Amino acid sequence: MRRVMGYEARFRCVAGCAGTYPLDQVIYRCPSCGELLEVAHDLEALRDRSAAAWMRLFDERWMSTRWPYGSGVWGKKEWVAPGVRDECVVSMAEGGSNLFWAERYGSSLGVGDLWLKLCGNSHTGSFKDLGMTVLVSVVRQMITDGKPIRAIACASTGDTSAALAAYCAAAGIRAVVLLPKGKISTAQLVQPLANGALVLALDTDFDGCMALVQKLADEPGVYLANSMNSLRLEGQKTVALEMVQQFDWQVPDWVIIPGGNLGNVSALGAGFEMMMTLGLITKRPRICVAQAQAANPLYRAYKQGWDSFEAMTAEPTEASAIRIGNPVSVRRAIRTLKAFDGVVEQASEEELSEAAAAADRTGTYACPHTGVALAALEKLVARREIKKGDRAVVISTANGLKFTDFKVRYHEGRIPGTSGRGRNVPVELPPDYEAVKRAVLSDLDRSAK
Amino acid sequence: MRRVMGYEARFRCVAGCAGTYPLDQVIYRCPSCGELLEVAHDLEALRDRSAAAWMRLFDERWMSTRWPYGSGVWGKKEWVAPGVRDECVVSMAEGGSNLFWAERYGSSLGVGDLWLKLCGNSHTGSFKDLGMTVLVSVVRQMITDGKPIRAIACASTGDTSAALAAYCAAAGIRAVVLLPKGKISTAQLVQPLANGALVLALDTDFDGCMALVQKLADEPGVYLANSMNSLRLEGQKTVALEMVQQFDWQVPDWVIIPGGNLGNVSALGAGFEMMMTLGLITKRPRICVAQAQAANPLYRAYKQGWDSFEAMTAEPTEASAIRIGNPVSVRRAIRTLKAFDGVVEQASEEELSEAAAAADRTGTYACPHTGVALAALEKLVARREIKKGDRAVVISTANGLKFTDFKVRYHEGRIPGTSGRGRNVPVELPPDYEAVKRAVLSDLDRSAK
Repeated sequence: MRRVMGYEARFRCVAGCAGTYPLDQVIYRCPSCGELLEVAHDLEALRDRSAAAWMRLFDERWMSTRWPYGSGVWGKKEWVAPGVRDECVVSMAEGGSNLFWAERYGSSLGVGDLWLKLCGNSHTGSFKDLGMTVLVSVVRQMITDGKPIRAIACASTGDTSAALAAYCAAAGIRAVVLLPKGKISTAQLVQPLANGALVLALDTDFDGCMALVQKLADEPGVYLANSMNSLRLEGQKTVALEMVQQFDWQVPDWVIIPGGNLGNVSALGAGFEMMMTLGLITKRPRICVAQAQAANPLYRAYKQGWDSFEAMTAEPTEASAIRIGNPVSVRRAIRTLKAFDGVVEQASEEELSEAAAAADRTGTYACPHTGVALAALEKLVARREIKKGDRAVVISTANGLKFTDFKVRYHEGRIPGTSGRGRNVPVELPPDYEAVKRAVLSDLDRSAK
Repeated sequence: MRRVMGYEARFRCVAGCAGTYPLDQVIYRCPSCGELLEVAHDLEALRDRSAAAWMRLFDERWMSTRWPYGSGVWGKKEWVAPGVRDECVVSMAEGGSNLFWAERYGSSLGVGDLWLKLCGNSHTGSFKDLGMTVLVSVVRQMITDGKPIRAIACASTGDTSAALAAYCAAAGIRAVVLLPKGKISTAQLVQPLANGALVLALDTDFDGCMALVQKLADEPGVYLANSMNSLRLEGQKTVALEMVQQFDWQVPDWVIIPGGNLGNVSALGAGFEMMMTLGLITKRPRICVAQAQAANPLYRAYKQGWDSFEAMTAEPTEASAIRIGNPVSVRRAIRTLKAFDGVVEQASEEELSEAAAAADRTGTYACPHTGVALAALEKLVARREIKKGDRAVVISTANGLKFTDFKVRYHEGRIPGTSGRGRNVPVELPPDYEAVKRAVLSDLDRSAK
């Protein structure tokens, strides 16, 4: 990949082995030690602009109509994938998602400065779009340049396959997705089908799909799109840049993020780190990774002081997208947490369900993973780790509309172990005015009390 | 409502009766003739800025962090509801939705300049957010100013109730929604439940719910949120402003919009009309209203040369949100179509399903109403009403994630009368590498042919 604009980014080993590799090389692991790779930017080149100049440039491009810089990801192109030629970019206006001031929910907890970054308000309904636009754009450029890539493949708990299939559909590239049969929501299963992907439903769990897709990526012409491919993390790291930009370049005190495969955690950290290095910010937020109790290997390792990490078999959870027992990016995530004075929290099925329901009553439509993060927030507030005056941002990873079944079962009281104190059910009535009037007026009288 | 910034907007009769009424008065129909009201702006006051100055102001505010002007709706506040005080605004970053270049879908039809305005990529997943932010903000101001409003009520085919419930939840106002039992998607039913609204499921159709909610609005303290309340249309008209702004202030040749209750059609027209009047644009697009064949009273009237309009009983259709036989805004919509050299088209269940599926294979995730509009587009292209070089914009009204059942049934071949030529189903396999490899490689060989 040529150096464009004088900037350059290359793969390198996360464990520090020597050697770098161009972003358009088909390589996922360090040839020396087998560890994952990360994208390293030529930071000296990036210092040709001052921090103020970068902020000004990013602000000028923010949501503009100038292709592809109006995208929240490609507006930071020099920091993400400078070698991608504009005409190869496959973009669907990723990023720029609402940073929602959770005024009523926050005040119910005693946190006045609480925000939800609604990443699910995006083309395919999750934060995965941020990374997939980068990966698919790089592949389109590789194909344009004559590399023999025939398909892009991923294993997925739902959101990744939706994003891959949509971006491939827009680009005219074949997508192959491996999903654990019966373990993702119907809404998530049908997205890649609609977008024309080859969907393999396998009688195993996510970790099983992940093992198979890694083998598949050894076949000639099959490119791997999982988050072990760190191109995606380069896109996802813009969520850190965006939230700071949306606060007019102020850094929040806390960021709470749900964690499964854990690529998003290191991406978040990488975004803040790059802003620190280039002088756009002068402090780091604290990061809290929130895991479902049913799939909490990082939480367990944290509780043991990071002495050891042990993969586990993840149990069923409403938060199906983070039902992962053997997270690919665990090493990167632990490194990030250490650097950001991080903590790990967990949420039971009841806690995640009630937290999502409580937030919904104040105007959100939280997916179960966001529920996990909200439950973690509630715990941090309760034990005063998050203080009254702190500014906290919860990363809402996906659109609640992908989890209609979860919402329905909650409000019908069908989530086991959940008291359902936030339940709300429809009142069925004949089409008779007096009946309607009685129902409404008695409700208003009750509400007024 | 005080005049703020020197601008003012008031209700007036659409049929031209004398008299105007402030926007914070509880009034939905002309006291003289019973017709609907519309919002009239003091255009002379708005001429204090040149067209160029308005465009510059709107561009400066576009998606900015300046509350509430970063909202696509409130960035045009002077043109929408100038009397609303900023502190009363209930906003969740409406508007600014992606104008998606449908490159692959367009080229399959021979239209190189085809765009989808993805209004479903929004807080509650439909264009209804654009209007609801205005209505709920006005009501919050009325309550702040001491008006005795206890609840906001609507009848809905799904999207309106979701928007009302979410905005009311954010504002802490009681919402009451009347829905036709069993006639909206589950995803749409659970949204207002999650947001804490009082949901009445009535054993009737939308038109029956509409009749009941109009009576209910006569009860003291119950404010009506249906589109006969033209406050919502003021927000919805920004979709016209936005698409022009996103084309750097160029006007498309065609806008295709699905039509049920038809408030959105007159809102669209009002947006273009206001830009014409104030000199921001110099031509009008042509407008096509697309109706489901099962609920096509406007199409029938159009085919008879507008001589007469007859309400009908709407039949079941996948496009459940436009299953409306007696549209409230029909008079305003016909007036708009006459002014915009408009046409009306219809789509059968097969046509809307196949059009949605065809677009999905190129990267969208079209709701069935968008399918109706896409099918209409295909007809206009086939009969060369839309020409090769024309720029056409299809309004995608809602997020496909609200219609998972529709997608599932389509891809399972369970939509009656549909050939399902775009069907795609998962391949179920054991978790065995050789089986996975065989399936993928044979697929790639087939795709290559």
